[in-house]
Amino acid sequence: MPTYTPPLRDMQFVLHEVFQVTEEFKAIPRHAEVDADTVNAVLEEAGKFAAGVAFPLNISGDEEGCTLDKATHEVATPKGFKEAYAQYVEGGWAALSCEPEYGGQGLPFVLNQCLYEMLNSANQAWTMYPGLSHGAYEALHAHGTEEQKKLYLPKLTSGEWTGTMCLTEPHCGTDLGLLRTKAEPQADGSYKITGNKIFISAGEHDFTENIVHLVLARLPDAPKGSKGISLFVVPKFKVNADGSLGERNPIYCAGLEHKMGIHGNATAQIAIDGAIGTLVGQPHKGLQAMFVMMNAARLGVGNQSLGLTEVAFQNALAYAKDRVQMRSLSGTKAKDKDADPIIVHPDVRKMLLTAKAYAEGARALQIYCTLLLDKAHSHPDEKVRKDSDELVALLTPIVKAFITDNGHVATNACMQVFGGHGFIKEWGMEQFVRDNRINMIYEGTNTIQSLDLLGRKILGNNGATLKKFGKLVGKLVEEEGVNEKMAEFINPIAYLGDQLPKFTTEIGFKGFQNPDEVGAAAVDYLRVAGHLVFGYMFARMAQVALRQIAAGNADPFYQAKLQTARFYFAKLFPETATLMRTARAGARSLMDTDAALA
Amino acid sequence: MPTYTPPLRDMQFVLHEVFQVTEEFKAIPRHAEVDADTVNAVLEEAGKFAAGVAFPLNISGDEEGCTLDKATHEVATPKGFKEAYAQYVEGGWAALSCEPEYGGQGLPFVLNQCLYEMLNSANQAWTMYPGLSHGAYEALHAHGTEEQKKLYLPKLTSGEWTGTMCLTEPHCGTDLGLLRTKAEPQADGSYKITGNKIFISAGEHDFTENIVHLVLARLPDAPKGSKGISLFVVPKFKVNADGSLGERNPIYCAGLEHKMGIHGNATAQIAIDGAIGTLVGQPHKGLQAMFVMMNAARLGVGNQSLGLTEVAFQNALAYAKDRVQMRSLSGTKAKDKDADPIIVHPDVRKMLLTAKAYAEGARALQIYCTLLLDKAHSHPDEKVRKDSDELVALLTPIVKAFITDNGHVATNACMQVFGGHGFIKEWGMEQFVRDNRINMIYEGTNTIQSLDLLGRKILGNNGATLKKFGKLVGKLVEEEGVNEKMAEFINPIAYLGDQLPKFTTEIGFKGFQNPDEVGAAAVDYLRVAGHLVFGYMFARMAQVALRQIAAGNADPFYQAKLQTARFYFAKLFPETATLMRTARAGARSLMDTDAALA
Repeated sequence: MPTYTPPLRDMQFVLHEVFQVTEEFKAIPRHAEVDADTVNAVLEEAGKFAAGVAFPLNISGDEEGCTLDKATHEVATPKGFKEAYAQYVEGGWAALSCEPEYGGQGLPFVLNQCLYEMLNSANQAWTMYPGLSHGAYEALHAHGTEEQKKLYLPKLTSGEWTGTMCLTEPHCGTDLGLLRTKAEPQADGSYKITGNKIFISAGEHDFTENIVHLVLARLPDAPKGSKGISLFVVPKFKVNADGSLGERNPIYCAGLEHKMGIHGNATAQIAIDGAIGTLVGQPHKGLQAMFVMMNAARLGVGNQSLGLTEVAFQNALAYAKDRVQMRSLSGTKAKDKDADPIIVHPDVRKMLLTAKAYAEGARALQIYCTLLLDKAHSHPDEKVRKDSDELVALLTPIVKAFITDNGHVATNACMQVFGGHGFIKEWGMEQFVRDNRINMIYEGTNTIQSLDLLGRKILGNNGATLKKFGKLVGKLVEEEGVNEKMAEFINPIAYLGDQLPKFTTEIGFKGFQNPDEVGAAAVDYLRVAGHLVFGYMFARMAQVALRQIAAGNADPFYQAKLQTARFYFAKLFPETATLMRTARAGARSLMDTDAALA
Repeated sequence: MPTYTPPLRDMQFVLHEVFQVTEEFKAIPRHAEVDADTVNAVLEEAGKFAAGVAFPLNISGDEEGCTLDKATHEVATPKGFKEAYAQYVEGGWAALSCEPEYGGQGLPFVLNQCLYEMLNSANQAWTMYPGLSHGAYEALHAHGTEEQKKLYLPKLTSGEWTGTMCLTEPHCGTDLGLLRTKAEPQADGSYKITGNKIFISAGEHDFTENIVHLVLARLPDAPKGSKGISLFVVPKFKVNADGSLGERNPIYCAGLEHKMGIHGNATAQIAIDGAIGTLVGQPHKGLQAMFVMMNAARLGVGNQSLGLTEVAFQNALAYAKDRVQMRSLSGTKAKDKDADPIIVHPDVRKMLLTAKAYAEGARALQIYCTLLLDKAHSHPDEKVRKDSDELVALLTPIVKAFITDNGHVATNACMQVFGGHGFIKEWGMEQFVRDNRINMIYEGTNTIQSLDLLGRKILGNNGATLKKFGKLVGKLVEEEGVNEKMAEFINPIAYLGDQLPKFTTEIGFKGFQNPDEVGAAAVDYLRVAGHLVFGYMFARMAQVALRQIAAGNADPFYQAKLQTARFYFAKLFPETATLMRTARAGARSLMDTDAALA
């Protein structure tokens, strides 16, 4: 059976030593009092909940899955899930970064980020139930009326109710412009909603007495396509003005999907049969309102893969130290044993270090992004807010696609360390692979992320935001360019940082003549950009580690960090050599293939 | 639900047009009469069996799995599996390439290869039951006594009995030198065998009245390690001299593994409790005897991934043509529809072509290798036999590791084409991913294959066999070096073919000083070699296609082949740029990481 230890030391390193979050908090009035002790205490308690409560239910939840009672439309979640959620609510975790106005603790998003990394390591399927509520909370908070906020936000904050996002229909996922669910205005200002949704994560369950569905639908006068979609809040049980529950709304779970992974989460087909809801935000502007949820959710999906990468690494490392098999090529290491532990073998180390580097790079990037969110949300200086918002928008598709693709590589590598045992369910490794696999798909496939990055976020503003990130890289290169010890970490990003604008212009120019050139290059481009971002993160982490070592700090943590950074630049970062080549190979070999794809 | 169409046209192209197998057969007396009509007729019937009988049981077999009755130790296979096997035996498929002396049809291995590709596309879990028998047949045929052959080979040939390979024990997989199962000599010349085996594919089932286990065990006087292992044949039911069944041998299924995939195959824990067996080959030389099975099995595992890549491609292609979602970046393509079919999107085409190129490259290589096996086995000229044997030995780890890793990439890409639907079991795509995943592990992990290739097969003989393959590449480069139309296919392999010997020498030199350098480079090296081999296959296929087009053949098959080859060289082959870089980065960043992997 797998084990999990919250990576508190590495989180604290990134939070305090690399990004000095409490210094940043001091500039944000609402967080000015959040000191290091508070941060560390929250992380420690969060880790206890994740490892002690959510993690023991991971394998059993996968085995058991969810069950729909077709007569009552009620879903039973796996044994222990409901009780774990009650503990979560009891512990106040749902309220961690919600607004005090609605009963929240008002703590920075960056703490919620760390809580969720650990929950995802522990049990992605379970974590999606409270996780989806955050999106619903954010959308209602940003676009709801005062009445909607008053009715729903306190219950979502406390965790008494959970939320969902009802977007996908059988014939439309990526292309929401095609959606058909209808909303008819009623005399009392409410709407009667009818349609069929699929793939609704946490769409039905037995955790709470009510579920707050956010549903995309079309008004009768809606224009065709994505400009005719509106957002509605449709509770499972209608809510009276005093907050008490009214009658059951006809929004039902009509079926549960049988999936490759995340078995413990109910992926519901939702039949909406004249359910009553209220409009959120402006008519026909539902997609904008939903994007508040989507952007948060995309960072959240990256975080799921970070969690799985970390827990897969921990278990593969433990196995590689324990399992003896063959002798080291460079001579016997464990003379007292019949064979050496497999961690002596170079390729086993490579698989382990791949996972470790991808986890640590992802952790730094996720924390960096959520700190930007805190600034975008609450910093008193408008320019800081705007810059932070732009930068996090640029990085969001990288977080979503790069970290989840890396999670695929990493969880598979960790499973491979186990040999045949990796394929056997009881070891838990194959579940990490299966659970991670959805992260590359949902909340916009990784191809969609790459088009969002290259097409919209970069070419769409002539590379202006990319230049801002480039300046951060340039600043670090200037700071450390003469430091010989930093050369191995600085040179690769200095080189790639120089190349990327030219590379971008080149694709932009080709794309101007033929837009398919952008589509052909986008996935490779996103991974190149991802490596520049990870490279920057590793260089900053190496900088801190080198300074600590120079100052005489003997904590092996800093040597470990340098070794991981070195591995990253030696064995993972060079993927950019191929990616730039294949991106430059262009669209022709893809598009001039009508015979091959006949 | 997925569909499957046997790729007869591409098989015939590779067999007849690229490798001209019937010309080769003419030089092999026992196959001299096998003409193109025979080959094509066998393939067509094989395709009917695969698509019509084995394929419809694939998803249901995955859902149902196998069940062990702990009281009787008997295993029930999924519904329909037993009946399909009866049809297989009835059709004479088990006997296809077995010796006529034992009731076989004596047809070339290359036909069996094509049969098995299709069976693997149809149902890998089911195919492993008859597939394992082949290994047992080969080992007994090569090392058994006349009496053993007489007792077992006719029944294995007909398929009345099946065979297994009992190697792995809980504490030893890769490192068979650690195995503990004991064999005690009995007065009558037989052996009493005691021990515990795990991961025994097709280790117990209800297909046949008897199962022929080939078991590795130690004699009382055995030296320690891998030089003290002997091979025994241990039938489930003892076999009387007249071939009738005797009493039940105490070799039992003690449990079935719960696995990520291949659920329809019984992966058995086998308890051997004083079962009676007979020695196969020489005492303490069991590993050599077992390697006859292993080499065949390694080619067979590559073939499993070829099969899954092909069927995943076919279904992803059909879905991409059918599913409409978003408009093409370069302008609306399907004006009559609400959106364009997703095949218009460059990255969807890239995912499809990745699978197609990996399937077609693998098919060519698998057929090439099995034709070499036919020559190694039956060619009248000793030098041809020896050369063929050496070349297939070189290529075996590439077939096993490169094709199965490519299968992982390809099946995941095809699943990704389906978006969220790819994650749902009913579409069948996620099963291809899960079933393929074991192929990277069993019969020697892909890391072990890379060490076998670089350490043993290449550095072990100073690159002599590699040079022989290099000569084949050189010959093609000379033939086509002045043909402008071939330049795009020839230049990449000419360049890599030049680089590879230097690259090899470089690693060999570093490895001489520090053997871990070989272990650090091996996995990257194998993929570089794999691309040279695939590049050679694609260049040969392009050569044939160009000649047909030049001769006025308007069959779009040839354009399709050129387009696929072009895609391969533009988008997949350039992986070598990174691989050579990361291999050259050497062992240090892996081995000097004691703090990071503490």
